[in-house]
Amino acid sequence: MKIRDIKTIEERRKFIEKKVKRSLSAIKVYPQGLEAAQFKNCENMIGAVQLPLGIAGPLMVKGQLVKGEYYIPLATTEGALVASVSRGCKAASLSGGVKVITRNIGMTRSPVFKTSGIEKSIVLESWLKNNFSRLQKIAQNTSAHLQLLKIDASIAGRNIYVRFYFDTEDAMGMNMATIATQEVSQFIEKETGAECISIASNFDVDKKPASLNFILGRGRKVWAEALIERKIVAEVLKTTPEKIHEVAINKCLIGSAMSGSLGFNAHFANIISAIFIACGQDAAHVVEGSLGITTTDIVDSNLYISIYLPDLAVGTVGGGTNLPSQKEALSILGISGGDGGENARRFAEIVGASVLAGELSLLAALAEGSLASAHQKLARNK
Amino acid sequence: MKIRDIKTIEERRKFIEKKVKRSLSAIKVYPQGLEAAQFKNCENMIGAVQLPLGIAGPLMVKGQLVKGEYYIPLATTEGALVASVSRGCKAASLSGGVKVITRNIGMTRSPVFKTSGIEKSIVLESWLKNNFSRLQKIAQNTSAHLQLLKIDASIAGRNIYVRFYFDTEDAMGMNMATIATQEVSQFIEKETGAECISIASNFDVDKKPASLNFILGRGRKVWAEALIERKIVAEVLKTTPEKIHEVAINKCLIGSAMSGSLGFNAHFANIISAIFIACGQDAAHVVEGSLGITTTDIVDSNLYISIYLPDLAVGTVGGGTNLPSQKEALSILGISGGDGGENARRFAEIVGASVLAGELSLLAALAEGSLASAHQKLARNK
Amino acid sequence: MKIRDIKTIEERRKFIEKKVKRSLSAIKVYPQGLEAAQFKNCENMIGAVQLPLGIAGPLMVKGQLVKGEYYIPLATTEGALVASVSRGCKAASLSGGVKVITRNIGMTRSPVFKTSGIEKSIVLESWLKNNFSRLQKIAQNTSAHLQLLKIDASIAGRNIYVRFYFDTEDAMGMNMATIATQEVSQFIEKETGAECISIASNFDVDKKPASLNFILGRGRKVWAEALIERKIVAEVLKTTPEKIHEVAINKCLIGSAMSGSLGFNAHFANIISAIFIACGQDAAHVVEGSLGITTTDIVDSNLYISIYLPDLAVGTVGGGTNLPSQKEALSILGISGGDGGENARRFAEIVGASVLAGELSLLAALAEGSLASAHQKLARNK
Amino acid sequence: MKIRDIKTIEERRKFIEKKVKRSLSAIKVYPQGLEAAQFKNCENMIGAVQLPLGIAGPLMVKGQLVKGEYYIPLATTEGALVASVSRGCKAASLSGGVKVITRNIGMTRSPVFKTSGIEKSIVLESWLKNNFSRLQKIAQNTSAHLQLLKIDASIAGRNIYVRFYFDTEDAMGMNMATIATQEVSQFIEKETGAECISIASNFDVDKKPASLNFILGRGRKVWAEALIERKIVAEVLKTTPEKIHEVAINKCLIGSAMSGSLGFNAHFANIISAIFIACGQDAAHVVEGSLGITTTDIVDSNLYISIYLPDLAVGTVGGGTNLPSQKEALSILGISGGDGGENARRFAEIVGASVLAGELSLLAALAEGSLASAHQKLARNK
Repeated sequence: MKIRDIKTIEERRKFIEKKVKRSLSAIKVYPQGLEAAQFKNCENMIGAVQLPLGIAGPLMVKGQLVKGEYYIPLATTEGALVASVSRGCKAASLSGGVKVITRNIGMTRSPVFKTSGIEKSIVLESWLKNNFSRLQKIAQNTSAHLQLLKIDASIAGRNIYVRFYFDTEDAMGMNMATIATQEVSQFIEKETGAECISIASNFDVDKKPASLNFILGRGRKVWAEALIERKIVAEVLKTTPEKIHEVAINKCLIGSAMSGSLGFNAHFANIISAIFIACGQDAAHVVEGSLGITTTDIVDSNLYISIYLPDLAVGTVGGGTNLPSQKEALSILGISGGDGGENARRFAEIVGASVLAGELSLLAALAEGSLASAHQKLARNK
Repeated sequence: MKIRDIKTIEERRKFIEKKVKRSLSAIKVYPQGLEAAQFKNCENMIGAVQLPLGIAGPLMVKGQLVKGEYYIPLATTEGALVASVSRGCKAASLSGGVKVITRNIGMTRSPVFKTSGIEKSIVLESWLKNNFSRLQKIAQNTSAHLQLLKIDASIAGRNIYVRFYFDTEDAMGMNMATIATQEVSQFIEKETGAECISIASNFDVDKKPASLNFILGRGRKVWAEALIERKIVAEVLKTTPEKIHEVAINKCLIGSAMSGSLGFNAHFANIISAIFIACGQDAAHVVEGSLGITTTDIVDSNLYISIYLPDLAVGTVGGGTNLPSQKEALSILGISGGDGGENARRFAEIVGASVLAGELSLLAALAEGSLASAHQKLARNK
Repeated sequence: MKIRDIKTIEERRKFIEKKVKRSLSAIKVYPQGLEAAQFKNCENMIGAVQLPLGIAGPLMVKGQLVKGEYYIPLATTEGALVASVSRGCKAASLSGGVKVITRNIGMTRSPVFKTSGIEKSIVLESWLKNNFSRLQKIAQNTSAHLQLLKIDASIAGRNIYVRFYFDTEDAMGMNMATIATQEVSQFIEKETGAECISIASNFDVDKKPASLNFILGRGRKVWAEALIERKIVAEVLKTTPEKIHEVAINKCLIGSAMSGSLGFNAHFANIISAIFIACGQDAAHVVEGSLGITTTDIVDSNLYISIYLPDLAVGTVGGGTNLPSQKEALSILGISGGDGGENARRFAEIVGASVLAGELSLLAALAEGSLASAHQKLARNK
Repeated sequence: MKIRDIKTIEERRKFIEKKVKRSLSAIKVYPQGLEAAQFKNCENMIGAVQLPLGIAGPLMVKGQLVKGEYYIPLATTEGALVASVSRGCKAASLSGGVKVITRNIGMTRSPVFKTSGIEKSIVLESWLKNNFSRLQKIAQNTSAHLQLLKIDASIAGRNIYVRFYFDTEDAMGMNMATIATQEVSQFIEKETGAECISIASNFDVDKKPASLNFILGRGRKVWAEALIERKIVAEVLKTTPEKIHEVAINKCLIGSAMSGSLGFNAHFANIISAIFIACGQDAAHVVEGSLGITTTDIVDSNLYISIYLPDLAVGTVGGGTNLPSQKEALSILGISGGDGGENARRFAEIVGASVLAGELSLLAALAEGSLASAHQKLARNK
């Protein structure tokens, strides 16, 4: 008897309970509707894992689509995170809020083709340019919600790494991109004789940290900024703009340089993982969300702070976004389903603002020297 | 009225429901015992987000502590992942299982100190060496479960980046490490006159992708390997050792080189995020888990495959490991609470074997050309 | 008395001889014509340093402009290098020669501008696109040999990093690019109000190793390849295609991955530094020439080898190319002065082919186990 | 007739002159004594290439071994470089000079061994530790000037990358290290049964840019610093400490972060290549010298500036150091031959101080906006 031959969640869980001789009574707790996940989200489903959901904010967000105060849903098991982001939200909101701008780079998928040599690789590269609209059509036949935006390519000998950029509207789009790439790649093989070694070649770069994504972007690029008044830095964050600026330079810039890092920030990954899990995003994309840079400046004795996320993969349809509580978490942000790409953009704006709030608060805690005591108070490994 | 002034989960959720004018009935579903998370894991808790939990395996693991067949709990919303890892488990287990070796590098925390110049920076570096046992004592006074193992330092002008390595037994240990670092840093300031700019300086490197962690390791280093018989590659994975080897070279090695990546693997992050969320780990550490390398070789016409995780941050106590379903997920692996560091090691062994199963299956799918169709069948962005 | 106030090479050398109380009789040896270098190439000139010039080859080069056998001038003080490259030339030439393809990416220069915030940074980025032809005109007014090809930009908060790509014909072009960038940047400041913080911002990236240059290229991209017959591998290189392939995978790919390297090759820098110094190139650009990847494959039991140089900065006019012996070294390659960009391209083709010869020979020596003995025989640190 | 069969420089040059139908009268100009280079430094030698040698300074150096004013010999063909470094020397010297500290990390060489699997790889790693003194003896039998200092190792599956650190006294030592590694590797093969795939595995990392070298160092680590008085910044450098600090942050830190660079500096490579070529160093090591970081700070309204070179490979014996004019260039620095490692250290101190002078001057030129005009005046691509 194999678990994949069992047909219901209940029976699968019992099968495992028997195998491991333990009761799994907590895993069986989940809201109505989640059981459908076994068909689309999670094979061999035996129940659910529940992560505590906290609320940071309200945060005043001044995006291009989203304007106003937002409560930020964060699913985390790491004490102090929600409180810290909340503090950042407060300081930013009192200073007028966080301005956010996003840009849709597109979800990428990168096959690698093998040719007979560099001449043929170059020929294939040209062929891709010359046949862009044909490839577009083939790609777009695979989904009404997908558009091929651009093709980059890079050649190393017989290998040509092709990077397709797809607009996938409100979907994160990795699956749509994969399916479209498959079709397009078969067409390329047939037309050119090049052999597709793999439709995913790490030139995407999906779920791996990479300079390529930092430099060219993937998913959406997000910039956010706020100007925190000196008085508010003192009152809310218990420190000064100069001290925060000093920590930012010595930690986010020099510290990251000294460690050969691609993350020139304080803790993007913390905020992104919490909001991603809350809102049904793919948690493995936190890897890409950890890329980016936080900058600070002293402007008229106030603190200017900005974050830049070059590689944010988000969606408001597909993946886990339709699961019961994830859908509700998105609804807390006023987001529901698809809207021609605008909902994913709204979500990206809120993520960007939240990340800025998180950076601000942690940098201030480090400047003030309160990080350890916050953790001692709010979370103990005991 | 602020959310942080509200005292119960129920009332907080109602507060948010009112604010956003939406019912959050799914978020209120969670097992008994999870409500305690509001005090240790998640401030402003309003309920829970439930992720579907699937089971891959069984997987024959031949670790140093763990030996036998394991069912792997994976919390994911990305269709096809559990099925794919399961297929890898089958191929590996039929071939005799996955051998795993781990090494405890220690959880690291890195303050940065400012001195008056390079001479003083060098003096401080020597002082750290000469006072190692004093620093050890101070660190160890902060917890009975923590031991200072080693100190590295790196100097840039007036800045000295100090990297403390702590054995934190079965805890992932970031909080313990932070608290110990705080104490130690204050002692250093007092004794040497150097100023601690920040007790966390990105030389840790916590939750950022970095060569430093790849090269020196963090948390635990994990190596796993399997020799997959040619016949099993054909029958279970529908391809050949040579084709998998070719994909591995052109994707994991050359493809990652071409993209300036620190992840020379197929999709470590997918498996690690799913098992981390299932088992109460810190999801932001997936960033570090995405580092590493997959190697393949043809050995007597069979497929040798290995994975190397230089930077795996895991724990079986603290964090989310004590939450109801996470605790149960760990119990599926036969792991419960602390065991002087051995349970965290057991868990690391299982993670390593699971990652190998995931790599094997995806590389095979790419070699065979079935990635897109698996996704088309099992997960659709619709 | 300061050295810069002295007017002749002779008197400056005497001034230094007196200061250091040593005779500098070798430094005064240089050919007629080199003394002009004091006005254009080297301030405070006191004479010359002579590097031994060796000849590798002949090498059969099959470029797009260059076809035929070439003797490769290499200025080096490291014994065994010329002999090693020569061996590679022999093996490649006997196998039909080295095919080379180049592409002119353009010399880049990158100012960084400071704006009042992300909105203005985005506006400036758009302005650059919309005013491209105006900027082109301004750039091109600074030199008849320069053309602005493209502009890339990347934004982090108030900072916008702008990367200008210039066709500089046969000049390496860094100075021309700097002068043009100065003019263009002043125009941008005047028209947009953005402040130019620095006309060189490390987004160029000039003489620093960087993923940006690896991924997008700088100067010229060069690909070269050869198919070395099994018999020739045995006879000339004393090893087998399989052994070379194994070394290439384990050294150039896995070894470089393990060390966080941007150079996935055996020793590009050795060949490039020797040919650059011989031919009057800027030796600091060896840094950029060290980027790139060597790939190998077994094709019908023969050895396929390719090299990819993404970032080769070369010129045949300007810099040191007009100095007496450097000019002669270029003439050995049949190259003299400018030819509308084609001479620099010819030179790039020969450099690419030479690098391949060097890679082939070293990989073979490592496969065969003869590296140390070659060095013992040809160069001793005694 | 092959060039390698010809026995004299003169005849080889004539052979090439005939082949290329050009006179090579400049190449034949070189000082007495250089002809010996054909036996140790450069096979197939046909003469010499002469690079103009300029003098920067004097520079007040306050090293641990070297104290006093030095004239810095720079061999370069890039106009403006000597003048720029000189300006930096002046500003630094007027402010009391440049403090320098070096540390001998050792020259590294890294074989890669193949084992039967991870268990054996781990066993081999232990064996290396346990047999350190035996390996030391074997290494030291190969030269009286070499000592094995340390062994690092890193494992990926069947591959174990071993990094030997050698003290090579006053030699740069790559050849000595290779020969010693060869002996040691053969011993390891014999004793353990592991197969040495290549005695150089890119884990050295020789002449490739790599985080490993940045983080752990190679050759010598060098730190230098100076405090430049505000008045001197104004008078000599025509700008302010604040402006230089701003350029340093936005160029060397943020700019390098944005470009995925391993060089967080302004132009280390320029100074290092010029002093390396002048003083008979291996020019390909400029690649490694380009790694590192420049930091600035405002201290009591003056400018603090530091440079950190983690990877400086230098020698005062062997390589090109004994060639006539290179020997003289070293003598300008008061350095001649070997001194138990102290001469190489003296040279490293002077290189470090010179690099700082170069950084200071370029950052000031960028801050002041004079880079392009300096180049227009001093060097034209015409």
